[in-house]
Amino acid sequence: MGLRGGVWASCSVPCPGGGPVPQSRPTSPLASPQETLTGKYGEDTKLIYELQDQGGELLALRYDLTVPFARYLAMNKITNMKRYHVAKVYRRDNPATTRGRYREFYQCDFDIAGQFDPMIPDAECLKIVHEILSDLQLGDFIIKVNDRRILNGVFAVCGIPESKFITMCSTVDKLDKMPWEEVRSEMVGEKGLSPEAADHIGEYVQLHGGLDLIEQLLQDPKLSQNKLAKEGLGDMKLLFEYLTLFGITGKISFDLSLARGLDYYTGVIFEAVLLQPENDHVEEPVSVGSVAGGGRYDGLVGMFDPKGRKVPCVGVSIGIERIFSILEQRVKASGEKVRTTETQVLVATPQKHLLAARLKLISELWDAGIKAEILYKKDPKLLKQLQYCEDTGIPLAAIIGEQELTDGVVKLRDVATREEVDIPREKLVDEIRRRLEP
Amino acid sequence: MGLRGGVWASCSVPCPGGGPVPQSRPTSPLASPQETLTGKYGEDTKLIYELQDQGGELLALRYDLTVPFARYLAMNKITNMKRYHVAKVYRRDNPATTRGRYREFYQCDFDIAGQFDPMIPDAECLKIVHEILSDLQLGDFIIKVNDRRILNGVFAVCGIPESKFITMCSTVDKLDKMPWEEVRSEMVGEKGLSPEAADHIGEYVQLHGGLDLIEQLLQDPKLSQNKLAKEGLGDMKLLFEYLTLFGITGKISFDLSLARGLDYYTGVIFEAVLLQPENDHVEEPVSVGSVAGGGRYDGLVGMFDPKGRKVPCVGVSIGIERIFSILEQRVKASGEKVRTTETQVLVATPQKHLLAARLKLISELWDAGIKAEILYKKDPKLLKQLQYCEDTGIPLAAIIGEQELTDGVVKLRDVATREEVDIPREKLVDEIRRRLEP
Repeated sequence: MGLRGGVWASCSVPCPGGGPVPQSRPTSPLASPQETLTGKYGEDTKLIYELQDQGGELLALRYDLTVPFARYLAMNKITNMKRYHVAKVYRRDNPATTRGRYREFYQCDFDIAGQFDPMIPDAECLKIVHEILSDLQLGDFIIKVNDRRILNGVFAVCGIPESKFITMCSTVDKLDKMPWEEVRSEMVGEKGLSPEAADHIGEYVQLHGGLDLIEQLLQDPKLSQNKLAKEGLGDMKLLFEYLTLFGITGKISFDLSLARGLDYYTGVIFEAVLLQPENDHVEEPVSVGSVAGGGRYDGLVGMFDPKGRKVPCVGVSIGIERIFSILEQRVKASGEKVRTTETQVLVATPQKHLLAARLKLISELWDAGIKAEILYKKDPKLLKQLQYCEDTGIPLAAIIGEQELTDGVVKLRDVATREEVDIPREKLVDEIRRRLEP
Repeated sequence: MGLRGGVWASCSVPCPGGGPVPQSRPTSPLASPQETLTGKYGEDTKLIYELQDQGGELLALRYDLTVPFARYLAMNKITNMKRYHVAKVYRRDNPATTRGRYREFYQCDFDIAGQFDPMIPDAECLKIVHEILSDLQLGDFIIKVNDRRILNGVFAVCGIPESKFITMCSTVDKLDKMPWEEVRSEMVGEKGLSPEAADHIGEYVQLHGGLDLIEQLLQDPKLSQNKLAKEGLGDMKLLFEYLTLFGITGKISFDLSLARGLDYYTGVIFEAVLLQPENDHVEEPVSVGSVAGGGRYDGLVGMFDPKGRKVPCVGVSIGIERIFSILEQRVKASGEKVRTTETQVLVATPQKHLLAARLKLISELWDAGIKAEILYKKDPKLLKQLQYCEDTGIPLAAIIGEQELTDGVVKLRDVATREEVDIPREKLVDEIRRRLEP
């Protein structure tokens, strides 16, 4: 499974969601000073949950895991770290539960912080996204990549002033949800661009491809004269080289329409989208769109350091809520029953007045590490106990009645086949383990 | 390990902290309407973090996992559930980090909800606490048990009016931190009891023992006339019977001074405390005190149900932060190095211009599920790469140079012994797996 696979699992710090880590504690706090969060999310700042002033402290709930991670690095003077983090974030948004959008939801982030040679960590982030989406078998997907420096270069050669670069990014970013014509009118109407400048931008941002496109743009008479764009295109070429070595370029598209809404990206940006199968047999198709996204943010840590010391970072956020809503719908559609417990054995009795025998036996099983349950009734009916096994998918029942107590055995029942065998009590644990072997 | 052992692992719903569960989502939200939380925590209500009103909603951060669990059951009309939950809670308290007290900290709860025969789920909660504390080898411990009904019966026979029962509980609860004389003066001074009533209470609440004490109190001329106390003592006897079958009475103490501060308990209450070893060699002894606590709260779910329908519950909260602070200090004292990564292999090169070879090899290892890392540098020195393995405890290095590329082999180095063997590339994954077998 991807979430524990090779590249992902080599990440240095385990997820705090799996329990606090004894040695290092990379969990950045859920509540941060309000000014920590404001000014990092552009137009989305209005979605931040703020806490009441209760004694001179203005705090806010985290909006994502990236800004708290950057603050954590700065506050602890860490210049080098690779970690993943699965935890909840909060947005005052309108929930859309069918699409996996909630006000409180899990994010699942992977980030590499540190001063390294270009594009090596960036390529690893994309490899991780590829590994997770492949292993989860979510269907066909594509990972769009772009670079903020290329986009800014495009804006520059189209005559846009630098002060408008960030707002232009949010407008271009809408190209995955609306056609170019609408994006163009926003540029001209709301953002005050000349129709010619908008059209010029349109020529670039509608391009997508692979190494060919990178080479073509490196030859582009205007773009190749722009320092930022040239740097971005050079790194993009390097990135494709590394992704070729990783064997994943088949799923990667260099897409100039990808802009990502957030303010803090400074280099490579990327976003993974699921592709709807052409022949869609699912009755209620899930419109999920983007399932992972991220990029390079070299300036964010410096914003939290008193001396402005920078720590370059690149990271990715996996949309686990969206992925789970797809998996849920798929399970629902398949009609398969999913077990909600891991219980291996139900300890049952066929007659009354045998609660003590059940408690003694289950205690033995628990002490041996067997996952066992009993019904919390003094004298449950045997039928009810067996029905419980079938309802919850417990594979074995260990039945102990008066006869079994006298004989020193336990009747082990296979719930599926209904076969029953008397097992000497001292061999019960071994027999259960043997039956449960994969 | 206890946290995954027999009794604990048989709990039906896995911890949301380990990732959201596809089928059921037992995660109660972090933010609740403020009125949900007020009036549940007695004097501790002042420690609740409240959110700013941002559009007519008054919300608060959860103070524990119990009240949100009760609200979850009521809102979803669930009458029957066993689950564990590891997640963060929030308290506007004064942090004391050395004692493992934070404003934001993990709680780890296990609860059984439903109408069952008396004391069977209650005994299971105690068995779980016993299993966890034993398996973690935290040293000697004792689990104190009592029953709110016994305490209330004591108050009643000592002439205390029912309206004062809850506040009397918080006073008695201080007996683990201060001597009886001080508790007595709080009763007389602050709570307005007569010295005789206080002394009478003192005769009872300083008692502790086992089955003998239960029998003795069942014969107590006054207490045995009190309906509540009689019920509580009857159930306590049953509980000890079940705990004997579970083989754990050696660590259980029926202790009448145990009161637990919270308002919502209605029956059995319990608290586990670590005992300091007599011969203490640790330089900085950790004063941790209570590491788990809980009890029965049969009225809480009904408070959230519009029709007041009750769902009896019993549960326990494991103080994982405190347990971790003990484990951390122990590791520190032992001087042992704890690995912070699970990386199995570092892919290294001895010469320059071999980044492509490293990337190709690591990609093969990742794809085979091997946990591998590289240094994010184009041309790192071999010494630096091997030093990194030693510093971080990576056991193997897969070294690929020009000669190895020509020969189709990889030099596999055991970092500890410094032994190196050439392995044919196609056999590398198997050889790594073989070496890493336990």
